[in-house]
Amino acid sequence: MRNFKLTIAYDGTSYHGWQTQPGLITIQGIMEDTLAKIIGHKVVVCGAGRTDAGVHAKGQVAHFHADTNHSLEILARALNATLPSDIAIIKIEEVPSSFHAQFDALGKEYRYYIFNQPVRSPFVGKSSLWVSTGLDVEAMREALSLMVGTHDFYSLSVVSEEKKNTIRTISRAEIKSEGDYLLVIIEGDGFLHKMVRRIVGTLLAIGKHKISSDRIPKILQSHNKQLGGKSVPGQGLFLMSVKYGQ
Amino acid sequence: MRNFKLTIAYDGTSYHGWQTQPGLITIQGIMEDTLAKIIGHKVVVCGAGRTDAGVHAKGQVAHFHADTNHSLEILARALNATLPSDIAIIKIEEVPSSFHAQFDALGKEYRYYIFNQPVRSPFVGKSSLWVSTGLDVEAMREALSLMVGTHDFYSLSVVSEEKKNTIRTISRAEIKSEGDYLLVIIEGDGFLHKMVRRIVGTLLAIGKHKISSDRIPKILQSHNKQLGGKSVPGQGLFLMSVKYGQ
Repeated sequence: MRNFKLTIAYDGTSYHGWQTQPGLITIQGIMEDTLAKIIGHKVVVCGAGRTDAGVHAKGQVAHFHADTNHSLEILARALNATLPSDIAIIKIEEVPSSFHAQFDALGKEYRYYIFNQPVRSPFVGKSSLWVSTGLDVEAMREALSLMVGTHDFYSLSVVSEEKKNTIRTISRAEIKSEGDYLLVIIEGDGFLHKMVRRIVGTLLAIGKHKISSDRIPKILQSHNKQLGGKSVPGQGLFLMSVKYGQ
Repeated sequence: MRNFKLTIAYDGTSYHGWQTQPGLITIQGIMEDTLAKIIGHKVVVCGAGRTDAGVHAKGQVAHFHADTNHSLEILARALNATLPSDIAIIKIEEVPSSFHAQFDALGKEYRYYIFNQPVRSPFVGKSSLWVSTGLDVEAMREALSLMVGTHDFYSLSVVSEEKKNTIRTISRAEIKSEGDYLLVIIEGDGFLHKMVRRIVGTLLAIGKHKISSDRIPKILQSHNKQLGGKSVPGQGLFLMSVKYGQ
């Protein structure tokens, strides 16, 4: 059996997230069905991480073991010819059989796109969140800088109490202005469920002066999920890349 | 009756073009239905020009006469609250009753987006044309420069013989590289049916060395529709703006 590493881009609009769920159309499910057709046997595709319904990826990574003589080029071509137009294989590599997309991942970069204009746009609805009001971006930047580092992010997630380790490290975070967009870029070693979306929701509450930026340390320490902002919709979120060693 | 000038953006993917057609969903039709609801009487919306099925606009202009006391702000808000998410009013102005969006238009700018990458993207399918092969952009630029000025564009249109005046002036044309895109920008006083799309199709044939760039003057002079490239799909075309006097 050879082991293959895939870099995948997808528009998550039409999918119930990455992970296979009985009766629902998911990206993992489509990938596994497509690979089974191409390779001729059942294939399990393991992603670096789940993405929720409506969330997009420009650089999701996954691996699968398969018994095939096809060249990488042929596999890439067959996949891109067979997959629906909202999923594309950016890269396929052969990797040592020990490579595991989830367990070997050292970090991930997420981006959240906020379309910050008074009038909505017909073009960006499914790939950004429209915020029509002005935002105090400086306050948002200050708040985000207070989240960088190693913290317990329980308060800014939706995980349940029982989950043991809710400590994560954000290694880099930034808010960029790009044309009509505000772009929240967050890199870290791992993310709790809906952590990025609750961070962005909290930043928006700060940008609208509903929460003060200096409350961030208190929110993190509180272990109370009620203090931060709400989770923003998945449509603005992109998994940009997954980092591995060497 | 007051006269209103609208600047409209739309994603044309789901529409049978701008112009009302019996039994088909068009942008003009949706605009007229929406305005009738808001204003309370039948309204005729006249666009600066038709856009074909699948073609988008970032700055289509239209005017309509209406008997209403609503302020411009209220009208804009009511329109954007009522219109489907793929149509947005960018601006509404009150204009002299003589203003006519089509007859007063002095020029238009169109852009055509070519996604020029070996691997298709899940994100750009409905707003660009994917071209996977390399293109000789210098030859395309040379060809485009030969189209600037006043020429008979019959050969690069789909109009029938009987149409009297097929002479048009392209005042500015440019090919820009923008990230993964090649962007063809064309400004002119007016455009024949499918003229921009046949110009882009001809440029692509030149970029692939199927036609030589120095053939452009001959193609234009030939009055023969078989010599140029084919019309490219509407999905990559955007009406960017319409120019009026003062």
